[in-house]
Amino acid sequence: MSDKEHRVLRLGLLGSGVVGSGVVNVLSRNQDEIRRRTGRTLKIVRIGTREVEKARQDFGDAYQYTTELDEITTAPDVDVVIELIGGTTRAREVILSAIAAGKHVVTANKALLAEHGTEIFAAARAKGVIVAFEAAIAGGIPIVKALREGLSANRIQWVAGIINGTTNYILSEMREKGVDFQSALKDAQALGYAEADPTFDIEGVDAAHKITLICSLAFGVPVQFHKAYIEGISQLETADIAYAEKLGYRVKLLGIAKAAEKGIELRVHPTLVPISRLIANVHGAMNAVVVQGDAVGATLYYGKGAGSEPTASAVIADLVDIARMETADPAHQVPYLAFMSDALSNTPILPMEEVVTSYYLRLRVADEAGVLAQVTRILADQAISIDAVIQRESDEVSDANENQTDLMILTHETTERAMNQAIALIESLPSVFGVRRIRKEELQ
Amino acid sequence: MSDKEHRVLRLGLLGSGVVGSGVVNVLSRNQDEIRRRTGRTLKIVRIGTREVEKARQDFGDAYQYTTELDEITTAPDVDVVIELIGGTTRAREVILSAIAAGKHVVTANKALLAEHGTEIFAAARAKGVIVAFEAAIAGGIPIVKALREGLSANRIQWVAGIINGTTNYILSEMREKGVDFQSALKDAQALGYAEADPTFDIEGVDAAHKITLICSLAFGVPVQFHKAYIEGISQLETADIAYAEKLGYRVKLLGIAKAAEKGIELRVHPTLVPISRLIANVHGAMNAVVVQGDAVGATLYYGKGAGSEPTASAVIADLVDIARMETADPAHQVPYLAFMSDALSNTPILPMEEVVTSYYLRLRVADEAGVLAQVTRILADQAISIDAVIQRESDEVSDANENQTDLMILTHETTERAMNQAIALIESLPSVFGVRRIRKEELQ
Repeated sequence: MSDKEHRVLRLGLLGSGVVGSGVVNVLSRNQDEIRRRTGRTLKIVRIGTREVEKARQDFGDAYQYTTELDEITTAPDVDVVIELIGGTTRAREVILSAIAAGKHVVTANKALLAEHGTEIFAAARAKGVIVAFEAAIAGGIPIVKALREGLSANRIQWVAGIINGTTNYILSEMREKGVDFQSALKDAQALGYAEADPTFDIEGVDAAHKITLICSLAFGVPVQFHKAYIEGISQLETADIAYAEKLGYRVKLLGIAKAAEKGIELRVHPTLVPISRLIANVHGAMNAVVVQGDAVGATLYYGKGAGSEPTASAVIADLVDIARMETADPAHQVPYLAFMSDALSNTPILPMEEVVTSYYLRLRVADEAGVLAQVTRILADQAISIDAVIQRESDEVSDANENQTDLMILTHETTERAMNQAIALIESLPSVFGVRRIRKEELQ
Repeated sequence: MSDKEHRVLRLGLLGSGVVGSGVVNVLSRNQDEIRRRTGRTLKIVRIGTREVEKARQDFGDAYQYTTELDEITTAPDVDVVIELIGGTTRAREVILSAIAAGKHVVTANKALLAEHGTEIFAAARAKGVIVAFEAAIAGGIPIVKALREGLSANRIQWVAGIINGTTNYILSEMREKGVDFQSALKDAQALGYAEADPTFDIEGVDAAHKITLICSLAFGVPVQFHKAYIEGISQLETADIAYAEKLGYRVKLLGIAKAAEKGIELRVHPTLVPISRLIANVHGAMNAVVVQGDAVGATLYYGKGAGSEPTASAVIADLVDIARMETADPAHQVPYLAFMSDALSNTPILPMEEVVTSYYLRLRVADEAGVLAQVTRILADQAISIDAVIQRESDEVSDANENQTDLMILTHETTERAMNQAIALIESLPSVFGVRRIRKEELQ
């Protein structure tokens, strides 16, 4: 074998935290296996970190350490810069610096790409370098690869994913143990599945970053995080999870990107999914993404969406791709967002009011005759048809107020606009004391 | 955009059957979307088929038709030959002819590659051409890509897959409807899920072809179909499926490739899988593959494993890869079997007697005291420890012989050799009238 085939791919690693450690450890442990696969050696030469001494203790003296990240992004002995520092300010600067210096970039930074992807990909294209981000979506699951390559024959119709492990863990706990959101959140924090400030996860922002990227990969539109509809799980009540189960559905926080008639739906919200779907049976902190293509039908990808080594698995897969692809004509390499840069489309992201879906409604109503007739009249006036109605049985939920009861309605598809109007009218009824809504997707 | 970027990838299609039709239809329907993704036009120029007139009626006059396949494999206006004629004789010849003429090859032919892969890949390597076969395993699911690229950071520990839709459909029917194998097979045939001669599917041969390829992709060993242990589902009894369910397990026909201490396990057999695993909930004709990697943990890939357009989806994804990769240095392209040709290992495939797994046993025994003690003594003598024992309850199965009953035993892990010896001894007991065994995998 020639020297060229054994050529070293020289890596500059920025960040020595959870994922950075995983990259160092997996590359070290599996270097022989990776060399068998690529014919090349993937070698970290420089590590940039705020905590040089700790990193040196953890990783040893085989690497050059620095606190000055720009030393690495411009170093002549670095072929690829791995950005694992997170955030959107300094990370953006170092990635642009690396690109300007002609380095390929691998990043796990979903927030950065969802918000500044257009700028970063344009800079990379101008320099003819690769920016890879498998680790930014669903951790170790090779979903970016599936969307950009494995399903490239298809017109993608929709993607729906459990792409935030924290919220899936909390929802699983609420369902299995019947505890409320706050209690499940505390458990998740105690076990390290949720951060001290869990806002980004529980309010759906992290999932929205990821579905924004998925949306671009699926439909060939620029990243448009600011147009995503985002609703988290902090307002979910355990009773709704139990009622949904009784109706044959499970509540999951889904990121959804969907090609509709007039544009693209891009949304994150709690969603009722039929229990018979495989994705409804994804429990705990696991991730799963369903992709519906016109030729292949539905495919699903499941695995760990976070954690040191699962995320490192994705980072290193990107490095292997670079080792294999870098000699290819840049014009023919896999495009950053799955579609050629000059073929991105300006199909609009639809405002939430134009989204079409079906709904689960729970109405707190006076326990008296005639309420259901009033409610169904309002829905009918908005051309919303009803799929099922159930009333709370007396033994289901203990309740201080015996004169009130719960009424659950499943609707067929309608627009969010029509549903908003219907709910406003229903809420104005004197016999109705509150309306809760959860969107519902059949996912087939 | 330059002419070069719009350059046409010219395709010669061999076979106009179910999958060939899918390729023609999907390429035609989605040509704009594929051009947006690749910057290139994928164009079928020639079609080789025994039924030229029928093909012309189906596909129109845009293509050159011939019954002479060698005209296509050597045609100067063909860049890639797509082999979809099946079988292992003529298909081998045309693929070798195409390679000799310097064409890239895409094939869905699992039998051919499992039996003649070593010869074909060697010929392709010598000519520097790509042989791609995503469609050969699990249809539209991009599992070859996951193994060769997406999980390249990992030392793969095991792969277990439902990779034959016919048998999964039959097993699903047996469980859901309580019907016996023959009845479920007839249903499957009526619905087109099973062929008139279903032997290849129901006896596990098709799954063995696929797991043979998966085994090579996972562990970097040459294809060795002749060393695979193969056991199908035709001898399965519905009672065992029901008993397994009661014990918390579901029976699936799995292809398993596993790195063990002394070598590699390569086997296809009915397997008890915990119901809580996602793969246990893959129903009907669907496929799913679980891959356990040392960094990423378990990932699962699910979708349609057969059919016209799902299979075409995989064929065309390979074409897109070729369009993107063909300008790369051949020494750095993705290796055929995931590992560099000179890095394949000679790790042995273990004989079945050396395989380590756990077991479900069903003993038909005399309904009298002392039998269980004799059986457990034999197991203990073979150092096989017992996980659980249940006895048939009297109302479970109607039985002509009231003096006999069923005894179900779940064991912990042991070797197949020890289990063979134990079963021989158990069968020699006068109070035992028969022993059935199904292997069991926890899959985590």
